[in-house]
Amino acid sequence: MRPTGAFDAGPGREPRRSARGKGRLEAFSDGVIAILITIMVLELSVPQGSGWGGLAPLVPVLLTYLLSFVFLGIYWNNHHHMFHACDRINGTILWANLHLLFWLSLVPFVTRWIGANHRAPAPTAAYGVVLLLAGVAYVILQNAIIAEQGPGSRLAAAVGRDVKGKASAFLYAAAVPLAFLRPWIADVIYVFVALMWIVPDPRIEALLSE
Amino acid sequence: MRPTGAFDAGPGREPRRSARGKGRLEAFSDGVIAILITIMVLELSVPQGSGWGGLAPLVPVLLTYLLSFVFLGIYWNNHHHMFHACDRINGTILWANLHLLFWLSLVPFVTRWIGANHRAPAPTAAYGVVLLLAGVAYVILQNAIIAEQGPGSRLAAAVGRDVKGKASAFLYAAAVPLAFLRPWIADVIYVFVALMWIVPDPRIEALLSE
Amino acid sequence: MRPTGAFDAGPGREPRRSARGKGRLEAFSDGVIAILITIMVLELSVPQGSGWGGLAPLVPVLLTYLLSFVFLGIYWNNHHHMFHACDRINGTILWANLHLLFWLSLVPFVTRWIGANHRAPAPTAAYGVVLLLAGVAYVILQNAIIAEQGPGSRLAAAVGRDVKGKASAFLYAAAVPLAFLRPWIADVIYVFVALMWIVPDPRIEALLSE
Amino acid sequence: MRPTGAFDAGPGREPRRSARGKGRLEAFSDGVIAILITIMVLELSVPQGSGWGGLAPLVPVLLTYLLSFVFLGIYWNNHHHMFHACDRINGTILWANLHLLFWLSLVPFVTRWIGANHRAPAPTAAYGVVLLLAGVAYVILQNAIIAEQGPGSRLAAAVGRDVKGKASAFLYAAAVPLAFLRPWIADVIYVFVALMWIVPDPRIEALLSE
Repeated sequence: MRPTGAFDAGPGREPRRSARGKGRLEAFSDGVIAILITIMVLELSVPQGSGWGGLAPLVPVLLTYLLSFVFLGIYWNNHHHMFHACDRINGTILWANLHLLFWLSLVPFVTRWIGANHRAPAPTAAYGVVLLLAGVAYVILQNAIIAEQGPGSRLAAAVGRDVKGKASAFLYAAAVPLAFLRPWIADVIYVFVALMWIVPDPRIEALLSE
Repeated sequence: MRPTGAFDAGPGREPRRSARGKGRLEAFSDGVIAILITIMVLELSVPQGSGWGGLAPLVPVLLTYLLSFVFLGIYWNNHHHMFHACDRINGTILWANLHLLFWLSLVPFVTRWIGANHRAPAPTAAYGVVLLLAGVAYVILQNAIIAEQGPGSRLAAAVGRDVKGKASAFLYAAAVPLAFLRPWIADVIYVFVALMWIVPDPRIEALLSE
Repeated sequence: MRPTGAFDAGPGREPRRSARGKGRLEAFSDGVIAILITIMVLELSVPQGSGWGGLAPLVPVLLTYLLSFVFLGIYWNNHHHMFHACDRINGTILWANLHLLFWLSLVPFVTRWIGANHRAPAPTAAYGVVLLLAGVAYVILQNAIIAEQGPGSRLAAAVGRDVKGKASAFLYAAAVPLAFLRPWIADVIYVFVALMWIVPDPRIEALLSE
Repeated sequence: MRPTGAFDAGPGREPRRSARGKGRLEAFSDGVIAILITIMVLELSVPQGSGWGGLAPLVPVLLTYLLSFVFLGIYWNNHHHMFHACDRINGTILWANLHLLFWLSLVPFVTRWIGANHRAPAPTAAYGVVLLLAGVAYVILQNAIIAEQGPGSRLAAAVGRDVKGKASAFLYAAAVPLAFLRPWIADVIYVFVALMWIVPDPRIEALLSE
């Protein structure tokens, strides 16, 4: 029942197939994240009037867009590195990846809401909830990959105790109730988490240059 | 009339070319499904007001979005596996694939309609019609690939009698008239079909790990 | 001045580079066409009300969407085959390809216009003008590729006298003035051209199976 | 701590990995630029009425769309060539690339604004500001790549003194204040810069055919 085509000749067969499955999962994820990061710009409404004054009410919207752009960029970068260190995929990884993409797909939605009500507690808290659940989904995906690769894998070594990931989740979880106290405190936390991930990470650089 | 470039040197030529044609078909399909799965989020309107109360009327819309996200995710997963087991493409496969993408492209449209009228029979039935026709298009594509690969192919063996596919089609066909009786019965059927496909399928896992 | 990295080792260097440049051009074109073919569905407005009656005024819009979907699918298929038979790209090919993508990018625009005024001469004629200019851009791109590959190339042989391409251009050019006489005559011509390209073409199949 | 999978067998390991990381960065950038270049067409509103007269007020919008399409096409072409000459990526390059994509993502936004107010100074100047900052981001990315590749790299040689890039930045910087004097002067400058990049560049062609 096995085909005898060119792709099945010899011992090199299995790894190549795994690589292809992984390649298509990466391409699909890249597509989804690329779309999410760019459709947010569709939400930026044309400034009222033709003067610079029309831009003023858009400033919080533009800043929220920038923050969401950075968060999606961070997820893309981390996703990129994580699958870089992944050799094989399975059904659990496929669904864990779609689960992550689902929460990321809600980022433009909460961005729009926070942009329209940038001093209100509920949208600010909702933004944190989506980021928190995306972070949880990322950890689930990471664990699914490590489970497939084995505890002695390169990814398990690179991730280590994942201090940064745990700190981010803790900060998001703190930001959600704080948003009801003072929305700007939550905003500061979101910006802080983003900066934490942008600054060069020796762990990731080491993995990249490996 | 044959070129003499580097790509035409030797016996490895033909399979590679087939693989490339297939790769581009996969990339195009990935692009279309990635766009469909994400543009639905553009439909989620900003909640009215800045309180949590604004989210309440959006709950059915969000749940419909989640269901459609899952259905498109299932199609992407199955499409991924099916072409994994496909070595060659031809013109019929190209058009059968576009035919499937056409019906999938209507998913955001019916999602929007059902989201705006979630207890009405017609949108609920229309949702089932689109899913049914997408399912039929999937079977046509599957048959086109098996016809190209031959009855003894890996895909033919993996698909087998395709009990799951046939059961899905039967359930969609039942949901359409039931939507006019009680829309929630059709909703339950849609969720049931989605769950049927999400739970790990030994058949597919076996193919993946092969 | 030459790097000494792994990509520059030995005589296999040049063809690989050409292939990569071509691969990225294909990926970019696939992305643009995948987006164009799917964003049209965003134009489909939610039916008024919750009954089937709400779908009736959408029928011409849905049919126009289907026709444009088919036209973009034809262009993707042909683009796919043309670059299949292309080994090298250059700056002229890059810009000729962007020129084609520009005219294709106007398809959703004229689709929307014709969908909103499906019996009016001007939108029907504008649809033909965009299809005609896309067709002209396709021929320019084809000639740029043949010029790069040489007259004895596989593509030149496959294209031959390009009867189908010339007939399509002639029919579009005829449809534009006829749209002012009777819009439905132009519609019939558009459907006829689409069918002409969908029916299996032994020329293309021969190239594919080569 | 090293995996022993198929991807880690032998001395060919490292370059291949770099190439894959680069490949995914290219694919992601292609996706974002493809989306940006096509979503602008969503902004083209349906002409009022069904006559040709309805197109007249859209002419400046269509011309602005064409100009932005050309600018994004130029960036894609240059991005394509730059990474063609890049062998390795690192974290700085990843973020410099996202920084460039951020400014490019604002092109549809300023295109929409200028399209709605095509004779007003502020939108015309804002268009120049976005192009200028995208140009600066491009130079930062270019420098990050050259820093990784070394001063003797192929890219450093190809870029040379980058007269065209510097001239473009100077012209954009001049266009911003001139837009307040006479918007059309800025428009002429934008068109001039675009033409400067479209005309065949022996430097780039030499790199491509290398």
